Amino acid sequence: MTWETFQSYFLDLSPLPLSLDTSKVFFQCSFFESMQPKIAQALAQMADLEAGSIANPDEHRQVGHYWLRNFNLAPNEPIRRLLQENKQKRKTFVQSIRNGTIQSPQGPFQNLLCIGIGGSALGPQLLTDALVDGANGLQTFFLDNTDPDGVARLRNRLDPHWDRTLVLVTSKSGSTPEPRNGLMEIRAIFQEQRLHFPSHAVAITCEGSPLDEVAKGEHWLASFPMWDWVGGRTSLLSHVGLLPAALQGIDTDALLQGAAAMDTLTRRTYTFQNPALMMALAWYAGTDGCGKRNLVFLPYKDTLSLFPKYLQQLIMESLGKKEDVSGRIVHQGLTVYGNKGSTDQHAYVQQLRDGLNDALVTFLEVQAATHPSSVHVESDLTSNDFLEGFFLGTRAALTEVQRPSITITLSQVNAYTLGALVALFERTVGFYATFIGVNAYHQPGVEAGKKAAQRYLHLQQQLLTYLRTHREQSFTAEDLAHALLLPEQTEEIFKLLEYLTANQRLTRNNASSLTQRTYQIHCEGDVA
Amino acid sequence: MTWETFQSYFLDLSPLPLSLDTSKVFFQCSFFESMQPKIAQALAQMADLEAGSIANPDEHRQVGHYWLRNFNLAPNEPIRRLLQENKQKRKTFVQSIRNGTIQSPQGPFQNLLCIGIGGSALGPQLLTDALVDGANGLQTFFLDNTDPDGVARLRNRLDPHWDRTLVLVTSKSGSTPEPRNGLMEIRAIFQEQRLHFPSHAVAITCEGSPLDEVAKGEHWLASFPMWDWVGGRTSLLSHVGLLPAALQGIDTDALLQGAAAMDTLTRRTYTFQNPALMMALAWYAGTDGCGKRNLVFLPYKDTLSLFPKYLQQLIMESLGKKEDVSGRIVHQGLTVYGNKGSTDQHAYVQQLRDGLNDALVTFLEVQAATHPSSVHVESDLTSNDFLEGFFLGTRAALTEVQRPSITITLSQVNAYTLGALVALFERTVGFYATFIGVNAYHQPGVEAGKKAAQRYLHLQQQLLTYLRTHREQSFTAEDLAHALLLPEQTEEIFKLLEYLTANQRLTRNNASSLTQRTYQIHCEGDVA
Repeated sequence: MTWETFQSYFLDLSPLPLSLDTSKVFFQCSFFESMQPKIAQALAQMADLEAGSIANPDEHRQVGHYWLRNFNLAPNEPIRRLLQENKQKRKTFVQSIRNGTIQSPQGPFQNLLCIGIGGSALGPQLLTDALVDGANGLQTFFLDNTDPDGVARLRNRLDPHWDRTLVLVTSKSGSTPEPRNGLMEIRAIFQEQRLHFPSHAVAITCEGSPLDEVAKGEHWLASFPMWDWVGGRTSLLSHVGLLPAALQGIDTDALLQGAAAMDTLTRRTYTFQNPALMMALAWYAGTDGCGKRNLVFLPYKDTLSLFPKYLQQLIMESLGKKEDVSGRIVHQGLTVYGNKGSTDQHAYVQQLRDGLNDALVTFLEVQAATHPSSVHVESDLTSNDFLEGFFLGTRAALTEVQRPSITITLSQVNAYTLGALVALFERTVGFYATFIGVNAYHQPGVEAGKKAAQRYLHLQQQLLTYLRTHREQSFTAEDLAHALLLPEQTEEIFKLLEYLTANQRLTRNNASSLTQRTYQIHCEGDVA
Repeated sequence: MTWETFQSYFLDLSPLPLSLDTSKVFFQCSFFESMQPKIAQALAQMADLEAGSIANPDEHRQVGHYWLRNFNLAPNEPIRRLLQENKQKRKTFVQSIRNGTIQSPQGPFQNLLCIGIGGSALGPQLLTDALVDGANGLQTFFLDNTDPDGVARLRNRLDPHWDRTLVLVTSKSGSTPEPRNGLMEIRAIFQEQRLHFPSHAVAITCEGSPLDEVAKGEHWLASFPMWDWVGGRTSLLSHVGLLPAALQGIDTDALLQGAAAMDTLTRRTYTFQNPALMMALAWYAGTDGCGKRNLVFLPYKDTLSLFPKYLQQLIMESLGKKEDVSGRIVHQGLTVYGNKGSTDQHAYVQQLRDGLNDALVTFLEVQAATHPSSVHVESDLTSNDFLEGFFLGTRAALTEVQRPSITITLSQVNAYTLGALVALFERTVGFYATFIGVNAYHQPGVEAGKKAAQRYLHLQQQLLTYLRTHREQSFTAEDLAHALLLPEQTEEIFKLLEYLTANQRLTRNNASSLTQRTYQIHCEGDVA
């Protein structure tokens, strides 16, 4: 790698304190020319999307997350006014909570519990982990699954402070089972503690959703809207991310400004000056446009360790598609993983350098610590210098063996640079989707699993009902499959019977052969 | 999938409350026969390893992690006695801390800070996250990087309780920079707080290492040994994992018993009855023995969400190798990622089902919650039933489209089942390494990055020295490369100059062209 080559692939993004280095992607000379039609198409489609086209045709939706940080972009006056009013509403509410104008019946709120999953969890978790610095706002907890052990863990942390806890339930449809269940579990705790739940509760959901109706019917403290033109995985800069962030004292204006500033740079039409285009091209070149390599993200910064997980959703859910926009079967996508450096050098750099050549690594270099240490661990060297040294060393070790990498450099982690970073990846995903010809804004494959889950839950109900009406008898899985007229579901029935047995809702004999295991309703355990 | 096929690939591991289902790997009929020689070789090599052969030939070391849970396996009497004595020493120490016989000068210890990285961090973190349940021991914190912001975050959590904090420093060589730096940062805090650090400190390290010498010279509370026949990534059941676990009230005997029980099962010579052989065969079949698919781990349990990260190190560092045991270039390995279900269904199941066919998913089903909830979220259905339903539903959605998966079922997460699970994967990795012909117990590729990091740190020192002796002058990166006689390292010098500028140790002009940027020592910032 010559110094000249480096310079031609090094993109300084000032005035944003970021830079992008694609010099270690090892682009072929002819690549950029061959991609020119796709680049032109990506820029044109993005301009249409920003102007309000139906960029998500399968769901007949506009895609408006870029409007969230630049209201002037909004395609019409009603949306612009909506954005303005909602910003004001959020600011007023946050101020009321923070200055104690709105309190719980027991006094000012001190804790925030966020209930949500997927896009309604990952974004807020990222912001909390990256930007909350000391105690400048509510202390925040998350419930992002339907696991009773997650609820129990939360109790260990929050008991006995529920009386000063604000509960924020985020669910776009208002009927996703995980947040619905989480809400019911938390309600039960409030009831047990004789606390009035609605005086602690806030919703973020589509207007008119089941959750919105409950929130309004029970007079929760507030209900903030989600819009069908903002997807879950790009909702970070809507109420979903900004409301909990602001309640924790994060500078949400800086987040929005950082994103808006990056959006401006990623509209540039000259390829080599557009960081999102360059990154999308690097993904394309590094994976042959068909996911040949995994994207590995290594932020060298403890406070960015959730960022790879955030990107996992943004990238994999957007790009992992069976069909392209014309309906052709393509099985496209990019696989994403990563944690943080230098810690992960000790976990998987061995493989990244020596093993399978299956990774396109993106290093996230953070130059300055938010809290520098004055300790010198060696002459002229701080802990932070070692962090930088490990990043540079690991990158050199990969480059030496011609393994490709991208480097994104931030001067520091703060709301402004994080907003910019998120915007950079949103745009890159959009461009890359055009390159490979898929709709980045829907998720048809998620439905299959949800529907199958409903079938199992229904089957469990059927089994319990049947066993309860035959409570003196015991049955094999095959017996029950036969009785329920579902002979082809013997395995599924077996799985559920074993599950119910482990939960002491059924009793089982000790037969080792599956065909001889018999199950019977467990009278005491049958609490339903 | 017929019920009959399912039964032949369903392996009940009772009396261990675990089972393994490989029926959804879609094995070819001829596969097992073709693998017979490799299977025989894997069993023979494992028997040799357990008997004390030099199973890590590159480093001329025995591989003894199986002895840790069955002292009778140890290849000779001195090692057996060593294990026995160390178990006793650990138990006595833990008891003394827990009953207050050993206290800090300010009173009984309440907190535990673990400093370590790689194998010295992931295992203890996993045990804490999975098994600590309420306040039955010390409250535990981790420092696993050389990031000053990680130290600052720790201060936010631990201030002002350092006086009751026990500090455990784990470093096999005793000279790994990250724990060394972490130790120095924490020492500085103790000094600032006028606390006597050695009265709070415990080491786990090889006897005679620099860390061991400091611990003994300064009369730390204790120093526990690491042995060269236990690798970092398989050190969970040595002092590395067991000491912090026991200090937190985790049942370490149960951990060891679970592992020992699984070791017994994974010695079985009949393939279909040996869960580690079956899993290694599933990896081989699912990845064509060359890493064609990524291993995705999805535990449906909040308390197991670190397990995929633990496996990432165990599997990727063990198997990601350039050369096979005969020195042939193979670039082997398996790539691993994953977080937890059902949360991740919302992140990347879209791609697992519809996108690239690049995943072999392992579902970790946990049947019963440790803390079941009595809330019924729908008729006859609990939150936990939904968790089970989502697991079954997601698995069905993958099976429907012929995407392979493995299922491991645990009745519950506890020390016994977690010990068994860890042992299952340790053995699987060992068998798979034989199948692909690599040494699973060394990590030569990690050294390259470490050495390169040292070069950069040295280069930074040179730059600062040069600039300090020319403090009135400013230089371009090219000037400095020329002056230091390192013209081919202009890019590296530029990276370091930009880094030092962001840290206010240099000042820079505002030239946008890299060749015109000049740097000068920053007098006030030059604290060295």
